[in-house]
Amino acid sequence: MSKIVPVVQEIMSANDSLAAQNRAKLDAAQVVGMNIMASPGAGKTSTILRTIEALTADYKLGVVEGDTANVTIDADKVIAAGMPAVQINTGGNCHLDAVMLSGALAQMPLAEIELLIVENVGNLICPASFALGTHFNVVIASVPEGDDKPYKYPNIYRGIDALILNKMDLLPYIDFDMAYFRRGIEILNPDVAFFPISCKTGEGVAEWVAWLKERAAIYRQ
Amino acid sequence: MSKIVPVVQEIMSANDSLAAQNRAKLDAAQVVGMNIMASPGAGKTSTILRTIEALTADYKLGVVEGDTANVTIDADKVIAAGMPAVQINTGGNCHLDAVMLSGALAQMPLAEIELLIVENVGNLICPASFALGTHFNVVIASVPEGDDKPYKYPNIYRGIDALILNKMDLLPYIDFDMAYFRRGIEILNPDVAFFPISCKTGEGVAEWVAWLKERAAIYRQ
Repeated sequence: MSKIVPVVQEIMSANDSLAAQNRAKLDAAQVVGMNIMASPGAGKTSTILRTIEALTADYKLGVVEGDTANVTIDADKVIAAGMPAVQINTGGNCHLDAVMLSGALAQMPLAEIELLIVENVGNLICPASFALGTHFNVVIASVPEGDDKPYKYPNIYRGIDALILNKMDLLPYIDFDMAYFRRGIEILNPDVAFFPISCKTGEGVAEWVAWLKERAAIYRQ
Repeated sequence: MSKIVPVVQEIMSANDSLAAQNRAKLDAAQVVGMNIMASPGAGKTSTILRTIEALTADYKLGVVEGDTANVTIDADKVIAAGMPAVQINTGGNCHLDAVMLSGALAQMPLAEIELLIVENVGNLICPASFALGTHFNVVIASVPEGDDKPYKYPNIYRGIDALILNKMDLLPYIDFDMAYFRRGIEILNPDVAFFPISCKTGEGVAEWVAWLKERAAIYRQ
C-alpha cells in the first residue's frame, strides 16, 4: 500500500544544497564569506589587495583564489600580503561552484579568519549561475570594458549586493557614458551599492571598504 | 559470423563532427569563416567594424553575432555598417558551439558572402573548447586587461592563428609589460601572428587587415 506524502520542500539542485552546507560551515566558524566576480582583467586581485591593506588592522582575513589554470600569480600576491590563501585550480572550468569551495574551506584555518574573500574565475557569465554559499556577492566592472556590459551580460548583475567600477583613473581616455551604465544597472538591480574606484590611485577605496565593514558586521552580530 | 574492421577513424565528438559539417558548408559556398574570441569589452565589435570599413571594397562580408542575452547592440552596429548579420542569442550560455553556428549559417545568404566573421560570446575560457568549423581563429586581447592574461587563461591562446592586442592608445596610462605578455604568448603559440592595434586611433589596423586578406586568399584559392 502506498501513501501520498505532500512534498513542500523546495527542490534544491546539488550545487545549491552544497552551497547551503558551505554557508552553515562559515556561520558555525563565525566567518563572513564574500564572492567576487568579474571579467578577466577587471582588477579582482588588485581590489582584494587594496581591501586587505585597508582592513588588515580590523579583520582577520583569508582568501580563496579561483583560477582556470595551474598558475599562482594571484595567490602569490595575496600570500605576499600576509594572508592565508588557498588556490582552487578549476582545471579549465569557467567558474567556481559550491563543491570547489567546499574543498577549499576544508583547507582553510577558519578559526583564524573573520572575513573570507573568494575570488571567482574571470568570467561575466557562468559564475552568476553557481551559488557558493558566501554571505554576499560583489561584481567588479571596469571602465575600459565599456558602458554597455550590464545590457550584454545582465545575469551577473542581478542579485549582487555591491558593484565596484574599477579603473576610474582611465575615464578621461575612454568613451564611457556613466549615465547609460548606471541606467543599465538600475534596471537589473536597483538596490545594489555602487562604488566607483581606482586601485591605481586609491580613489573610492575608502567608501567601498566602509560598506564592506558595515556589511560584514551585520553577519557577525 | 562477425568480421573485424580496423577503425582508424578519429573519434570525433558531436561538436567536432558538426563543426566539420559547418566547414564543408562554408567550403561548398566558397565562404571563408573566421571566429573571433575575447574577454567582454576587449573590442570585438569595434575591431569587426574597423575590419568591415577596411575590407568592404574588396570583400563581400557577413557577420554572425554571438550574445548571451537578447540584446542587439552589436548586431545593430554591424547592420548599420551595411552588413548581412545574424544574431545568435545563446540564452545565457557562455560560448558559441557548432550547433549554434549551424543554425546561423542556415539563415545567412552564403552565396552573397565571401568572408564570414563570427563574433563569439565575450569569454576567455569556454569558447576555446568548442570548434565552430571556421577556417581560422583569432583572439582579441586588450591592454587594460593586463599583461598576465596568457598565463592565466592559456587555453584560449593555443591553436589560434592571429592575436590582436587592442586599445594600444591606453598603453601610456597602464602598467603593461609588453615583453612579459609576448613571452607568455610565445610559450603557448610561437607561430601566432601578432597585431597591436587601436580601434580608437586606427593604429595597426592596416597591418591586421593585410594579414586577414592574405589569409582569406589562401582558403579561397
